[in-house]
Amino acid sequence: MRIVPVRLGERSYAIKIGAGLLPRLGAECARLKLGRRSAIITDASVGPLFATTAHESLIAAGFEPLLITIPAGEKAKNLKVVQSCYDQLAAHRLERKSFVVAMGGGVVGDLAGFVAATYLRGIPFVQVPTTLLSQVDSSVGGKVGVNLAAGKNLVGAFYQPKLVLCDLDALKTLPSRQFASGLAEVVKYGIIYDARFFARLERDLPKLIKLEPQALTAVIARCCEIKAQVVGQDETEGGLRAILNFGHTIGHAIENSFGYGKYLHGEAIAIGQVLAAQLSVAGHGLPVAEAIRIEQLLARAGLPVRIRLSATQRKKLLAAMLLDKKVSAGEVKFVLAKSIGTVDFGCRVPQAAIEQTLMNA
Amino acid sequence: MRIVPVRLGERSYAIKIGAGLLPRLGAECARLKLGRRSAIITDASVGPLFATTAHESLIAAGFEPLLITIPAGEKAKNLKVVQSCYDQLAAHRLERKSFVVAMGGGVVGDLAGFVAATYLRGIPFVQVPTTLLSQVDSSVGGKVGVNLAAGKNLVGAFYQPKLVLCDLDALKTLPSRQFASGLAEVVKYGIIYDARFFARLERDLPKLIKLEPQALTAVIARCCEIKAQVVGQDETEGGLRAILNFGHTIGHAIENSFGYGKYLHGEAIAIGQVLAAQLSVAGHGLPVAEAIRIEQLLARAGLPVRIRLSATQRKKLLAAMLLDKKVSAGEVKFVLAKSIGTVDFGCRVPQAAIEQTLMNA
Repeated sequence: MRIVPVRLGERSYAIKIGAGLLPRLGAECARLKLGRRSAIITDASVGPLFATTAHESLIAAGFEPLLITIPAGEKAKNLKVVQSCYDQLAAHRLERKSFVVAMGGGVVGDLAGFVAATYLRGIPFVQVPTTLLSQVDSSVGGKVGVNLAAGKNLVGAFYQPKLVLCDLDALKTLPSRQFASGLAEVVKYGIIYDARFFARLERDLPKLIKLEPQALTAVIARCCEIKAQVVGQDETEGGLRAILNFGHTIGHAIENSFGYGKYLHGEAIAIGQVLAAQLSVAGHGLPVAEAIRIEQLLARAGLPVRIRLSATQRKKLLAAMLLDKKVSAGEVKFVLAKSIGTVDFGCRVPQAAIEQTLMNA
Repeated sequence: MRIVPVRLGERSYAIKIGAGLLPRLGAECARLKLGRRSAIITDASVGPLFATTAHESLIAAGFEPLLITIPAGEKAKNLKVVQSCYDQLAAHRLERKSFVVAMGGGVVGDLAGFVAATYLRGIPFVQVPTTLLSQVDSSVGGKVGVNLAAGKNLVGAFYQPKLVLCDLDALKTLPSRQFASGLAEVVKYGIIYDARFFARLERDLPKLIKLEPQALTAVIARCCEIKAQVVGQDETEGGLRAILNFGHTIGHAIENSFGYGKYLHGEAIAIGQVLAAQLSVAGHGLPVAEAIRIEQLLARAGLPVRIRLSATQRKKLLAAMLLDKKVSAGEVKFVLAKSIGTVDFGCRVPQAAIEQTLMNA
């Protein structure tokens, strides 16, 4: 087991990464000195696989867990589902020292985290991310929230978990398309922060795809470390943290304008990263050879790297970008790469360049 | 005009108290360096009285305000109304630097504050409390939120405004029952923190009821100061802040079990304070004479101080207390007074004593 500490003063916590962690959930929670009442929030895909183990582990450790199962998928990440969770927590009489376990992928983590952040103005929560994407992405950063009809993650909070357990065994049941989606974020960490890590991914990709525990643990831990370093310098997204959005400006717009579900998050940001790399070549000095390495690694990971857009779709995509939270004074700003491992945020890109890139996507 | 600074490090802000402040809203906001897009959230009672002034003032200062009017009353303080506000903010394309003006009583302040705290994970907000209760209570403390069917304020956040404008002129249109409700919180500040202030209220009550600006400004400012001192020592309600709940444990239960609306908040906590004073006499050394002074001052302010309960109602009330957020490990804890001006929090009270007090209420 590897432990990655996330240092945020009073809000510091640990990410534990390894095989066989889920059956230890109760024992790990017992060390946090929380109240007895608790709730596991999971979804209809993940619940049948892991809820019994989690539930029994909590009971064995003396807790009184309530199991809440929300519908699977991005569409469930809305305020109606949040309301239903609140009502169940209140009926089970969760108090301020009670806690929520968020067990599932990013949707469950974001939604359950938001529920924990706002129920009784905030109760503790523990994350058990069960997808590669959520293990490397939502384990760190404290971003929780839900979607509006107008866009993704438009409602939320910054709220830190007390503990994150990344059980590698959970990845064994993950469909390969979902696993690849997680790899898109993994590759991103190399691009934005660590050229050596990127090179290591180019070398170790086959091992990762085979779920070799050692390679996987090292990679997940490094992603969490990088994100923790970035977030530790900028907890509430005033500056540096923006680099984590490499590929996301276009990626979110793709998810949004094609409707949630058509592209998985990682698939959309794989395309977004390839396009951001092209914008970086055009206006930020990224060598063409490096843009090609980015595209090739993402493609080898089993991710889409191109998207064919009609004129209408291009227009829709641009409009979606303008509603993005990262927009300031009506101007879309990008994270662009100078080289693999070095990026800048807040880069202005002329709208014509964006349109040009989308036409060649 | 009096200015009360609320010192909370990076989250510090000013409360400005005086007559004629609303027409200066735009100019005041301009000093805060916020984005141009904004939204005034108000309700169907307050909007017709003040929205035009607020709206024009913002436009004159160069802002682009959207006006959102929610239904009046505690029943509107729910997630459906929150959802509708989010959707309107998104349609008006509010960005991270955009801001929300909460104009109205406690319900509007709590709901609009929660919307601001969670939209885009938090955008700035300015409070314009238009009732005495909200001027002395929700101006300070950063508690925002909404109700669930299971209880009041069960969902929310701690979130500070950038500025609070308390316009005394707004109180001229306030029904006397609402004004009295505010006085219940005013009296509370004397009991929990400042015996001299309590004596001053006994003396100046007639002036307050006549809305004499000098007396009113001084009293509102002192309430805000006391609350700011308490909150400054305990921003997220871990300890001292609990004293602000004097009279609220029973008061909230009354509001809750009689259905919102039957008793105004201040009316419920007036009764709650009288009962808390009785519990204090019984088990915390409060002299009987001081309990009588508390009851008399509240009665002179035009507030109910007694409640006749059936056995069923008593049972319901006790059950409601057990769901209160201040409950820990199933035990109801009270704020009790030693003397007027000195209270302790976290006091255990045997259930029999609570029942006895409710029987004599």
